[in-house]
This record gives sequence, structure tokens and C-alpha cells, in this order.
Amino acid sequence: MPKPMPQRPNNGLGSFEMIACAPDAGARRGLLHTAHGVVNTPAFMPVATQGTVKGITPAQLRELGAEIVLSNTYHLSLRPGAALVRELGGLHRFMGWDGPILTDSGGYQVFSLAPLRKISDQGVEFRSHLDGKSMFLTPESVIGLQVELGVDIAMVLDECAPAGATRAQAEEAARRTLQWAARSRAVHMNPAQLLFGIVQGATYKDLRLQQARALVALDFPGYAVGGLSVGEDRDITMEVAEATVAALPAERPRYLMGVGLPEDLIRFVAMGYDMFDCVLPTRNGRNGMLFTSCGRLNIRLARYARDPAPADPECACYTCRTFSRAYLRHLAAANEMLGAQLLSLHNLHFYQQLMRDMRAAISAGRFTAWSAERLSRLNPEVPT
Amino acid sequence: MPKPMPQRPNNGLGSFEMIACAPDAGARRGLLHTAHGVVNTPAFMPVATQGTVKGITPAQLRELGAEIVLSNTYHLSLRPGAALVRELGGLHRFMGWDGPILTDSGGYQVFSLAPLRKISDQGVEFRSHLDGKSMFLTPESVIGLQVELGVDIAMVLDECAPAGATRAQAEEAARRTLQWAARSRAVHMNPAQLLFGIVQGATYKDLRLQQARALVALDFPGYAVGGLSVGEDRDITMEVAEATVAALPAERPRYLMGVGLPEDLIRFVAMGYDMFDCVLPTRNGRNGMLFTSCGRLNIRLARYARDPAPADPECACYTCRTFSRAYLRHLAAANEMLGAQLLSLHNLHFYQQLMRDMRAAISAGRFTAWSAERLSRLNPEVPT
Repeated sequence: MPKPMPQRPNNGLGSFEMIACAPDAGARRGLLHTAHGVVNTPAFMPVATQGTVKGITPAQLRELGAEIVLSNTYHLSLRPGAALVRELGGLHRFMGWDGPILTDSGGYQVFSLAPLRKISDQGVEFRSHLDGKSMFLTPESVIGLQVELGVDIAMVLDECAPAGATRAQAEEAARRTLQWAARSRAVHMNPAQLLFGIVQGATYKDLRLQQARALVALDFPGYAVGGLSVGEDRDITMEVAEATVAALPAERPRYLMGVGLPEDLIRFVAMGYDMFDCVLPTRNGRNGMLFTSCGRLNIRLARYARDPAPADPECACYTCRTFSRAYLRHLAAANEMLGAQLLSLHNLHFYQQLMRDMRAAISAGRFTAWSAERLSRLNPEVPT
Repeated sequence: MPKPMPQRPNNGLGSFEMIACAPDAGARRGLLHTAHGVVNTPAFMPVATQGTVKGITPAQLRELGAEIVLSNTYHLSLRPGAALVRELGGLHRFMGWDGPILTDSGGYQVFSLAPLRKISDQGVEFRSHLDGKSMFLTPESVIGLQVELGVDIAMVLDECAPAGATRAQAEEAARRTLQWAARSRAVHMNPAQLLFGIVQGATYKDLRLQQARALVALDFPGYAVGGLSVGEDRDITMEVAEATVAALPAERPRYLMGVGLPEDLIRFVAMGYDMFDCVLPTRNGRNGMLFTSCGRLNIRLARYARDPAPADPECACYTCRTFSRAYLRHLAAANEMLGAQLLSLHNLHFYQQLMRDMRAAISAGRFTAWSAERLSRLNPEVPT
């Protein structure tokens, strides 16, 4: 059931409340108000690209404490179609999730499906990765699709440049992204939906800053930083993310798209980012890779064949409460679907617990000390 | 947690209580007492071949009302190994299921893996379907493996002849099965485990009867009828099942192995069978085929693309309470794992509800009327 729509101006002013700040870091504790409820930030959004978090029921998502999920406008528009989703009551009812939903626009697919698209100032023409049919996305049509889906947070169409982009390529993509953001802002009229702008600019810090300032002048309810974690060096990701966040207003939510590893999320929260999404917990779960309180663990290794311990002895998720590493390894070795489900469930719980821990540490005014201790334990080199 | 072991003689006398009978049919309502709790019969056992019901957590199994699951000695012995399962506390703890477990012996694999095995009076030599390694199963070793697994109900090793077996082949397999049953009975010493004998004899009714009588003379706690539904004509299955059950003692549980469709289960219960297992609910679920109160439904059909109704409007399962046919079709079309999970969950719930309905009808003394009404609705030709 959709909750009553909050009466807020369309720039989303007041939709984000900051309730605590780390005294000696950029980390912030906030509340993001949406038409389907409140999201505690910093928040991690499980990825439901095709309208489902792979292998996880909505009831399980609730149980593990997820408050918002991310889906994808490009994918849902191809299949089953945004009009069909609207006809069936919107994406919330369609996928059985009554909490907040954010949809990415399709900008990432401009990058990841590069051989299948042609880009111009007008928009992007895709050849569908499913059946080769042509689909033309414009900044305006992407807003329309997200209104049809009925999501709580819509993203503007953007152009995500590849990691090795030249200065000229990066400028061209950033210029287009900004122009599209202005067009998106102009046509977005849905007071029940928050529209976030996206900063591009590849790995060029001065370009990122310039883009961020121009985007902020358009006055969006929230700001995202896109085009990182697309293959560039990890130190560069950190530098660019840190430089860019400084140009984004403190009173609006800041979303770093498509990252990351647990230890990176702690660093990004320290910089002042509030929202994240990443396929790692579910994708790694399907591949037998577990995130644990003392580092990463490949459950397929022979050393776990007789291990009666839970995947993570410090974890309270259903998987860790119920099964041994030996059983999880058996499921992975036998390619049993339940293995992918249980490992994905654990990994998502691990990410949600990490965000809960971060929020508690910020509220308690001890984020810096907490993160130093936690980062030392998350070192993936520690044998487990 | 294993429940305290009931103090019962090793022939399982008293483990089966009959609490109601249909006045005008063979259907019986019973309670089967095991070391891990009571099973209400007639009962359907979800299939957990490799120690997992595909795509379903033990918590979900409980929720849908399953009281006993079936696993497979041959498969578990190959991977992860029966000794390893024992070392980890037995199959119940290993798979996180604290209710009763029955294991099939590997006799069905004698049939289904025919090119990979050599059979003699001594036992069966398999070439593992996983790595080609050789494994020799004897009636005695199969008992030992099931004791290691710690299951509540063990099955004797048997030889399942193919559908088109000649009289001579059927006699040879039946003779060997009986000899093996005697050897199994002689070595089985575990008072916490019920050992069931198996009647073979292919499609020859007189052979089945002769085998059943000889088997009953060995005094097993329960009797199974194997080697049906292996490709023979469905009318033949019905005739042979009905002829054979007459030779099995009323005071012991009767298990018809590897069947069947919902409408067939009703007919087998009417004959006096008490226990069933079948891969259909989960396998069909993975393939998009749903059992519903008004027949079978292929969720992949285009006609369900915009259908807002639940898969089965009369069903109370999580899938039907939460999702539309349109969403389930989307998941199936997108090959999303959650589709297989939600459809399997529904199908298993459908089977459990069917068994609950049968038990209630027997207890109320109206099984025959109930089954006539129900069979007319289950007609798969009814368009849905």
C-alpha cells in the first residue's frame, strides 16, 4: 500500500533531514523522506535491476533491514515495459515491495552496452540487448518512464564515460549530462517523486567540480556522483569521489552510484556520501564469495568442506543462524539454487549491518574511532 | 534439535497409528511416529535429493506445512559423503531441517543411471555421474550409509526395472530386490530408524502380489511400492498400484514411490496409500508450470503478461498472497531465480494443502464425495 504522499515542494526541500554529523569527519546521519517511507542514511540499496533482488523475496529484504531498493529504468522499460507496470499498479505493487524505490535511468547502460547504442545530444538509441529492437531514450522520456513506474526517486539520464576517457571525451559526456539534467529538471512535475541530478566528468577532478557546481545551480532534491568504479584505479576513485563531494550541498542527500566493497563504503561515508548501491553482495553470493566480519571468504574452497562454523560467527542472519560453512560449501559445489540464495541473503545482511553500525557510530559521535577499528578487521588479507 | 528417541521395537510396531478410515474407500488417516516427530498421513514428502529442496529454505518448508522431506542416499554418499554428514551432526543438522527425513536408497538410480552401473546379486557398481569414480553399493552398505546420515526412515536397496521389462527381467529384478530386503532386514539394528521394504515386479500384477506377500513375511515397519511411474502407461500404473496395495498390511504405512500428479495422489490415497514423494512441484515450478485449484497453468504464456490475479486465487501461500501472474511471468521470462523459487513454493504449498484437504475429508468421513468434487475441478483440460 503506498503511504500518503508528503506535501513537499518539487525541489524536495525538506525531504532530507540531517540528524547527526561526525565531529571529525564528513560522515552524516540523516533521514530521507519519500512517498513510501523514511530511509535512514547512510543507506545501502540492494540492486533489483529487473524488479527483483536476485534470489531474495521482499519479505526477506524487510527481515534483513533493507529500507530502499534500486531498480533500472532501461531494463524495466524493455521488459515488461513501463506502461504495463503502471497498468498493474506501479513498480511497488508489481514487485511486492512497499518501501521506497530508486530507479537508475539507463545512463550506466550507455556505458555498459556501448556497442549497442548511438548517442547524440537528443538522446540515446539502444539496440535492445534482448531482441535487437531499437529503443530511443531522451532525458524527457526517461522522466516519463520513471513516472509510469511510480518510483520514489528518479534519476536523470546521463552519459557515463569509460575509465580511459580522454579529456575531450570526458568533457563532451559531462557537457551532455549537464544539458540533459537541465532538460530533465524542466519537465519533472511529479511532487511524489524526488529527482536526483548526476555529476559526470570521468577522472578529471576540476571537470567534476565544475560540473557539480553547475548541477547544484539547477537545484535538485538530491545529487549523485556517477561514472566511478567503471574500471579506473581505486586510488583515483577515492580522490575523485572526495573532491566531488565537496561541491555538493550539505543539506541534500549525496548518492555515490555503483559502489562498492565494505571497506570502501566506510571511506565514502567518511567523505559525506549518504547513499550507495552495488551488485557485489548478490553477485558475489551467487559465486560463492562471502563478506564476513573478518574479511572475505570463498566458500568453494576445500578447507570449508568439514567446517561446522557459521559463515560469519558474528552474524545474526538466517543463513548464519541455521547453516554451517560445510553445508554452504556443499550447496555451492552441487550448484544448488539454495546456495546462491543463502549466500546472497548473508551478504546483503552484512551490508545492511555495516550501514546500521555506521549510523550508530555517527549518532554516538565516534565514527572515526569506529571506522579505524572496523577497517583493520575488514582487511581482506586476513586468512579466515 | 533431535527429539527424544521413542522406545519402540525395531520392527517399528506401534510407530504407525491409524486414526480414521474412509467408510467406502481404502483411504486412511494416520500418524507416523518417528525420532524427529509425528507425520500426519496421507503425507506428501518434498524432494531434497542433495540435502536441499531446490530453491526452498527449511523455514519456508515449515511455513508451507511440510512435515517430512525425502533425500537420497546415493547422491549424498557421493557428495558430500555420508561420513562427513555424520561428523557434522547428521543430515538434520547439516541441512537445517529438524523434522523427519526419509532417504531413498539408490535403487531408483539403478534404473535412471542404467548406463553407469553394473548389477549383480552382491550389489550395484556405479560409475559416479559426477566424476566417473567407482562406487559399490550393497544392501548392507546402504543401511550403513543411512545410519550414518541419521535419517528417521531408511529404504532398502532395490532394483527398479524399466517400464518395458520382459517377464524374465522383471522376475530377476524382483527376486534380487526380495533377497536384498532380507539381507537389509537382518543387518538393520538401529532402533531410532524405521526400515521400509520395497515391492518390485514391474507391471506384472501376479508377480507384484507374490513379492508383496514374501516381503510382508519379513515384517518391516513400513512398505513401499517402487518401480511405478517409470514410463509405463498411466492406466497400468493405477492397476498395478491398486493390486499391490491389497497385499500390504493395513496396520503399517504404505508408501508409493515417486508419484505423482495431484489427481493421481487422490486416487492413490483412495486405494490406501499413505506416503508419496515426487519432483513435480519443484521441477515444474522451475519450468514455469503451476498447479492450481482449477488445473495447470503455464505462467510463460503471453496471456498472463497483464494478468493482475494471483497464480491461484484460492491459494494462501506467500506467492499467491503477494504477487500477480503478470509479475511471475515477468520473472520467468527474465529467467530470474526468484521466479523458480516463488513457483516452487506455490506448487509445494498446493501439494501440502491437497494432503491437508484429503486428511480432513477422511477424518470427516466424506472422502469419496470430496474426491469426486475435487477431481472434477483438477481436470487439466479446464482452461485457466
